[in-house]
Amino acid sequence: MANLKWGGVDCLELAKKFGTPLYVYDTGIIKSRCKELRDTFINRWDNVRVRYASKAFLTRSMAKLIEHEGIGLDVVSLGELYTALSAKFPPERIEMNGNAKSHDEISLCVKSGVGRIIVDHPDELQIIEKYAQEFGRVQKILIRAAPGVDAHTHAYIATGQTGSKFGFPLDGDMLPDSIKYAMKSEYLNLTGLHFHVGSQLFEIDDYLKSLDIIIGLMKKLKDSLNFTTHELNLGGGFGAVINPAIPAMKSSFYTDSMMKLLHEKCKAYNLEIPRAVIEPGRWIISESGITLYTVENIKSLTGITFIAVNGGMADNPRYALSQAEYNAVRVKNFDEPVNYNNTQVSIVGKCCESGDILIENAKIQEVKPGDVIALYNTGAYTFSMSSSYNKLQRPAVVFVENGNAKLVVERQSLEDITRGDLLID
Amino acid sequence: MANLKWGGVDCLELAKKFGTPLYVYDTGIIKSRCKELRDTFINRWDNVRVRYASKAFLTRSMAKLIEHEGIGLDVVSLGELYTALSAKFPPERIEMNGNAKSHDEISLCVKSGVGRIIVDHPDELQIIEKYAQEFGRVQKILIRAAPGVDAHTHAYIATGQTGSKFGFPLDGDMLPDSIKYAMKSEYLNLTGLHFHVGSQLFEIDDYLKSLDIIIGLMKKLKDSLNFTTHELNLGGGFGAVINPAIPAMKSSFYTDSMMKLLHEKCKAYNLEIPRAVIEPGRWIISESGITLYTVENIKSLTGITFIAVNGGMADNPRYALSQAEYNAVRVKNFDEPVNYNNTQVSIVGKCCESGDILIENAKIQEVKPGDVIALYNTGAYTFSMSSSYNKLQRPAVVFVENGNAKLVVERQSLEDITRGDLLID
Repeated sequence: MANLKWGGVDCLELAKKFGTPLYVYDTGIIKSRCKELRDTFINRWDNVRVRYASKAFLTRSMAKLIEHEGIGLDVVSLGELYTALSAKFPPERIEMNGNAKSHDEISLCVKSGVGRIIVDHPDELQIIEKYAQEFGRVQKILIRAAPGVDAHTHAYIATGQTGSKFGFPLDGDMLPDSIKYAMKSEYLNLTGLHFHVGSQLFEIDDYLKSLDIIIGLMKKLKDSLNFTTHELNLGGGFGAVINPAIPAMKSSFYTDSMMKLLHEKCKAYNLEIPRAVIEPGRWIISESGITLYTVENIKSLTGITFIAVNGGMADNPRYALSQAEYNAVRVKNFDEPVNYNNTQVSIVGKCCESGDILIENAKIQEVKPGDVIALYNTGAYTFSMSSSYNKLQRPAVVFVENGNAKLVVERQSLEDITRGDLLID
Repeated sequence: MANLKWGGVDCLELAKKFGTPLYVYDTGIIKSRCKELRDTFINRWDNVRVRYASKAFLTRSMAKLIEHEGIGLDVVSLGELYTALSAKFPPERIEMNGNAKSHDEISLCVKSGVGRIIVDHPDELQIIEKYAQEFGRVQKILIRAAPGVDAHTHAYIATGQTGSKFGFPLDGDMLPDSIKYAMKSEYLNLTGLHFHVGSQLFEIDDYLKSLDIIIGLMKKLKDSLNFTTHELNLGGGFGAVINPAIPAMKSSFYTDSMMKLLHEKCKAYNLEIPRAVIEPGRWIISESGITLYTVENIKSLTGITFIAVNGGMADNPRYALSQAEYNAVRVKNFDEPVNYNNTQVSIVGKCCESGDILIENAKIQEVKPGDVIALYNTGAYTFSMSSSYNKLQRPAVVFVENGNAKLVVERQSLEDITRGDLLID
């Protein structure tokens, strides 16, 4: 019988000290994921790089941690870029993604010396040139291609276009025209291509199909335009597990097969082997994070028991958005067997919305009002997707490791809720 | 040929002056909705009240406007209550809802003199008593009953429990026991009952079925406990239209039938006719609001054209959450015929997420980068559900009327994005 610890810290003490709801990240797990990437990707293959997809979770301390781990950042907005730069993250290790970049975003990228802009639309080329000229730089860029593999349905779409808003379709003139344009530009240095298959992938087939298509494209571009792909960004999407009892996916499960295919196929096509870049986000951060909640009340109805907690879809909208699954435990004596065996248990939030559910079929120890519970594997897309719905205050973020806890983002105050809200008669 | 005006103000001028994305509310429409409620509900029937469901949209200026219109507020959290009180909204005209109220919420309700607490769980009774004793008050309360009508599927569930997290089931001892408890308490004044059927209802059947069940309950409570329901809160859920070309629903469509049934049935059962209270939110605010966006780029693929704008699921997650439908126009010469007739047009946002769609099948005039477009009927659950996903800055809110525009909520700054984000090494 013991209380749940995270990063060596008793979660009841965390709840007492920092309040609930509370996002808690074990930085030891984040570091071990980064080490795994170094051991089995960066040190196993020549000329490869890792960029953490910061949209999964970004704070200034997280940027600092990623910097110390020797990897780079993938950002997608002015706000993410600003956050990284304000943590003094080396700009040359930042890559900017996004399907609808604004002038402000492109301007700050070029001005601050961001390593790569991943071009998602032909119009971006002139805008980047404009700012490169203004700031006296040559901007390195990649072009994002849409390989046409629909990873959501696992259906293979042979036409080369998926109906996705992202990237350049492989058919038509858009892609070759933009490559020709970039190759001639004195302000653009087109180093290669980018593609991304999807999210939360637990199989390798779609990656390999997509990579195969993209290597075919590299060959075609070499033959038709004499364009050499020096760099190939393979995107992210590595799966993160839901149940903490199930072993995590190894990143080498994805990277070994992809690198093998890349090497073999480039050799067969007589192509230079490009630098391979990966952009894992969820895989690095999801399993390091838990969320602590306090139970407000329990409502036992015929056939269903509702455990209502003091957070919900405002701090974690993932069930509401896509019926994401989670597992939870009661923090106190968390190793006791689950108690609610004979009834359906829903862990629900406090928002005035029937879709405000955290876990629809929870297996958890018996709880009473005031008990603290923990949801596992909430590190990705919770803090980053949090809203102020029902004007709930965004929870604090705490980093834990080796028995120490540090506050890294303060809980929103009531004053924060009305900040900028002017009282006009 | 003219530019779209809202509240008499040219929307291109609004975009220029306040930037985009921009939430724009015509307060004239809000006032006319309030007037309609006065004319056809408050002044048509004796002893009725209206409480605006502020979770749909609440700022301090909105609270002020609602106060001037002579109606009350329904709030659901500490943050909403704090916002209303900070706008000096009369606390006695505030009602507090919510399925998992915290001690802090209940304490502030009692301390500030909130008119009603709508009790959603038996445990709340002792907590309210505790604070009522502490602050020397008698707290007026209602108990929320779950009439068991499932308005989502329009299926009638006869058992009296819906599997909803809200309210007291009609079967079992939970409800009568709590009523008996409240009747005996010297700190609680149980004035009646509350129920709520669902959201975005365009038919009256579910309301009437539910009301019929609740009047039956009132009769049962009178006979068994000698409990008189002095007040009956009928909830909200009145439908708001999507297409501005379709006339709005009249509130009397809902209230006339409900009031008729209430009067007739109470008479038949020899019951006192309770004060009727309604809680419209979306119906008051949805159609007064539009959102202005700037087009970043247009991507024409085989069979589909993507219009990408400078906002998306961060400022309006309703498509992502529930595939909510919207209509859009180009602001410049908005009365020109729509141009994209022969191809599917998706208006998408700038978030790195394929689900970041605003309109999946848009009918709109031809646009080019830099054009401003307007989405109609975005007044409800957009600002209030907005997130900081991708660290996008929350848009500003502007009130317009009679050709004048007033900034009521400032756009988030980049500094706001990192507020409370501590840089720990």
